Amino acid sequence: MSQPEQQMSIGMNILGFGAHAAAWRKAEVAADAYLDVEYYRNIARISERGCLDAIFLADGPALVGDVARQPAGRLEPTVLLTAVALATRHIGVIATASSSYNDPYNLARRFSSLDHISGGRAAWNVVTNAGDAAAQNFGLAGAPRHVDRYARADEFIDVTLKLWDSWEDHAVIADAGSGRFADPAKIHAIDFVGQHFSVKGPLNLPRSPQGRPVLVQAGSSEGGKALGSRYADAIFTTQTTLVDGQAFYQEMKQRARQWGRNPEHLKIMPGLSTVIGSTEAEAQARFDQLNAYHGEEGLLQQVASRVGLAVEELDPDAPLPWQRIGPIEEFERGSHGFLEAQLNLARRENLSIRELSRRILVGHRLLVGTPEQVADSLEHWFRAGAADGFNIMPDVFPSGVEAFVDHVVPLLQKRGVFRREYRGSTLREHLGLPYPASQYQQAAVAV
Amino acid sequence: MSQPEQQMSIGMNILGFGAHAAAWRKAEVAADAYLDVEYYRNIARISERGCLDAIFLADGPALVGDVARQPAGRLEPTVLLTAVALATRHIGVIATASSSYNDPYNLARRFSSLDHISGGRAAWNVVTNAGDAAAQNFGLAGAPRHVDRYARADEFIDVTLKLWDSWEDHAVIADAGSGRFADPAKIHAIDFVGQHFSVKGPLNLPRSPQGRPVLVQAGSSEGGKALGSRYADAIFTTQTTLVDGQAFYQEMKQRARQWGRNPEHLKIMPGLSTVIGSTEAEAQARFDQLNAYHGEEGLLQQVASRVGLAVEELDPDAPLPWQRIGPIEEFERGSHGFLEAQLNLARRENLSIRELSRRILVGHRLLVGTPEQVADSLEHWFRAGAADGFNIMPDVFPSGVEAFVDHVVPLLQKRGVFRREYRGSTLREHLGLPYPASQYQQAAVAV
Repeated sequence: MSQPEQQMSIGMNILGFGAHAAAWRKAEVAADAYLDVEYYRNIARISERGCLDAIFLADGPALVGDVARQPAGRLEPTVLLTAVALATRHIGVIATASSSYNDPYNLARRFSSLDHISGGRAAWNVVTNAGDAAAQNFGLAGAPRHVDRYARADEFIDVTLKLWDSWEDHAVIADAGSGRFADPAKIHAIDFVGQHFSVKGPLNLPRSPQGRPVLVQAGSSEGGKALGSRYADAIFTTQTTLVDGQAFYQEMKQRARQWGRNPEHLKIMPGLSTVIGSTEAEAQARFDQLNAYHGEEGLLQQVASRVGLAVEELDPDAPLPWQRIGPIEEFERGSHGFLEAQLNLARRENLSIRELSRRILVGHRLLVGTPEQVADSLEHWFRAGAADGFNIMPDVFPSGVEAFVDHVVPLLQKRGVFRREYRGSTLREHLGLPYPASQYQQAAVAV
Repeated sequence: MSQPEQQMSIGMNILGFGAHAAAWRKAEVAADAYLDVEYYRNIARISERGCLDAIFLADGPALVGDVARQPAGRLEPTVLLTAVALATRHIGVIATASSSYNDPYNLARRFSSLDHISGGRAAWNVVTNAGDAAAQNFGLAGAPRHVDRYARADEFIDVTLKLWDSWEDHAVIADAGSGRFADPAKIHAIDFVGQHFSVKGPLNLPRSPQGRPVLVQAGSSEGGKALGSRYADAIFTTQTTLVDGQAFYQEMKQRARQWGRNPEHLKIMPGLSTVIGSTEAEAQARFDQLNAYHGEEGLLQQVASRVGLAVEELDPDAPLPWQRIGPIEEFERGSHGFLEAQLNLARRENLSIRELSRRILVGHRLLVGTPEQVADSLEHWFRAGAADGFNIMPDVFPSGVEAFVDHVVPLLQKRGVFRREYRGSTLREHLGLPYPASQYQQAAVAV
């Protein structure tokens, strides 16, 4: 056997009851399980059994969706993932939080706390929140413009990284005998003054086990790509076809180089929704059952709302009305990345709206098939230079994560593209990322 | 035996390594234990063994103090208390958070999450943060004026209560069979527009197990008393003499009545620091050892900084220089309550500065003595109408909480003033507070 080659990373995206909008109707768990930490801990333990890199929680600070017909509301991710981290030993925990509706000091501290508590397994997924509903919970009439949200996000991340770095690695002496607690020369005010934030610092916590929590970014718009290539350790992205995946991968690695970064330290992880059955027919039957709960109109509605048209205006058996869909850059409501992924898939495969509605779940590529088919696709994207890893969104929990871990992961392991055991103890180590030096420590050395 | 009479409540205040500034020098635990959840979980389990009502974490969003000589930095309380709640079954968890440096939507959600996760044991201790250091981490040159901080706090609490009430008790239907998830008529936008906040709502979480997390307030200034008597379920206060304790108790109950509240639903809980030994001499020796670590100047400095004078200006063997201490209302830096408590104690007992420095820890009354003496004082204050309960701050953890739980609590139980077992499952039940109706539910009934 040769040396283990480069292996992929896999995150498990715990999206409520599953990525399918009708997941809760399958009633694998109680309909209030989404408020119960044990529900999440169970999924995390199953994921850890499969040696996955991390579990991931999306989030937004507003009640959205049709609450009469869909589970709504979410436990706050840093609080919930604290509970999950303490029920697991290895798996990373990635919490989404908004750069538009938080303060850097509070956020930096909460994620540093999670990194301390989890022993170095925390990550922050930065989102800017496109919706008006969130804005209206924070004193605004509607969401700030795309460009303004990303300008704020850039500054927010800069401040947050400085706060995480504000205690150097060996600032704490903790010598009870002499009474010396810390070396003040290694604890730095950051004295940040910017357009959006003025933050003196230092953070009121020593540096955390990973040096800094891992930074994940999920926007595939121009603003998102600029931000992610500059700061992120991992990009959760949305490409739906291999050729788009390869192009995005190349572009992001190139952008990272332009920022002076080692492109291997920016991990590209496309999303993939899965409906897995032991045969194709079984997978399709599972999908059909979920779609029946949701209804034809529910499926079409997902496509319609993404492109900003009413479902009544669309002919399900025709292609998208391309002439009525404006340029992506002009969409101010919703994710540019999800829209682009949907449009690219429909265009490249010349899909009808009905076909398209069955090829995408929550904005991401969907595979309905056997464990072999899923493993084939993951390996293909990974080897073809379209992905360093994947963000997996099973249709329904917990059966979807069980199918993935018990049937797809062993195939990936057999093929040598996924680990058989954890080799490190931090998320940074799982992802193959180096421990980051504090920016203040480097400055001290240079002087 | 007669019916059990009214019993006191007891909270355990986990202040770093203990209330004494030199607690960490005693080295009962590793000097980095304050970053380890197990340290807090152990204290919580000991407290739960004694049937205490809650553990409590103070907090502020800034690094303060002499970090060279004192442990500094704190894990974020809602994250940390999630970890603690999941290692215990009954005890309440009270997290401090700032109304000056948070947004109501995020805060309401985080505490609601903690209440869901803990099964109804969460409380928010509202503070306004007097210091400039916190302000400078949030874009301000210095702390807002006292009056402005309290005006914001009032509105902040109003919004937060509305968000916690925005889902009525039975809004969630969760019927997977029919696909009905919730009754939208029982989920309310709050449409709040005020001086400081505009928040549309509703919260993105169903109502939590306690209806609303318990609200604790800790300011004893005029602004603090107005706010606490209006909104709080419990007041953590600072009186250092019985007569002041009785006066405060009477005043707060009266103020609650004036707001139209049942005064029994506002619990008054003065702070008490303890240094416990099996004999008076042993307790004194323990205290002397801690003071020796801290040094004479360290003790005097605590008094000096509270009254805003330099330690060099003070004669330790003379009384406070009363003519040089301005009116409390004009102090803009620091807690009015702590200052008043210190001045009252010095004045009423005509203490020298040196004597005063040994009678107060972290701004609260200090008892150095035997378990009987501590139990006597608690029972006396409780029966004399100065307290519904106490917020206990042992000198050093874990030995201080062990001494309290294993030696003071049994005496209180024997005297019938403290529970021998938990009778309820929520913090609200421990405190003897009723389950609050949603303000939106009441309105619906009235229509």
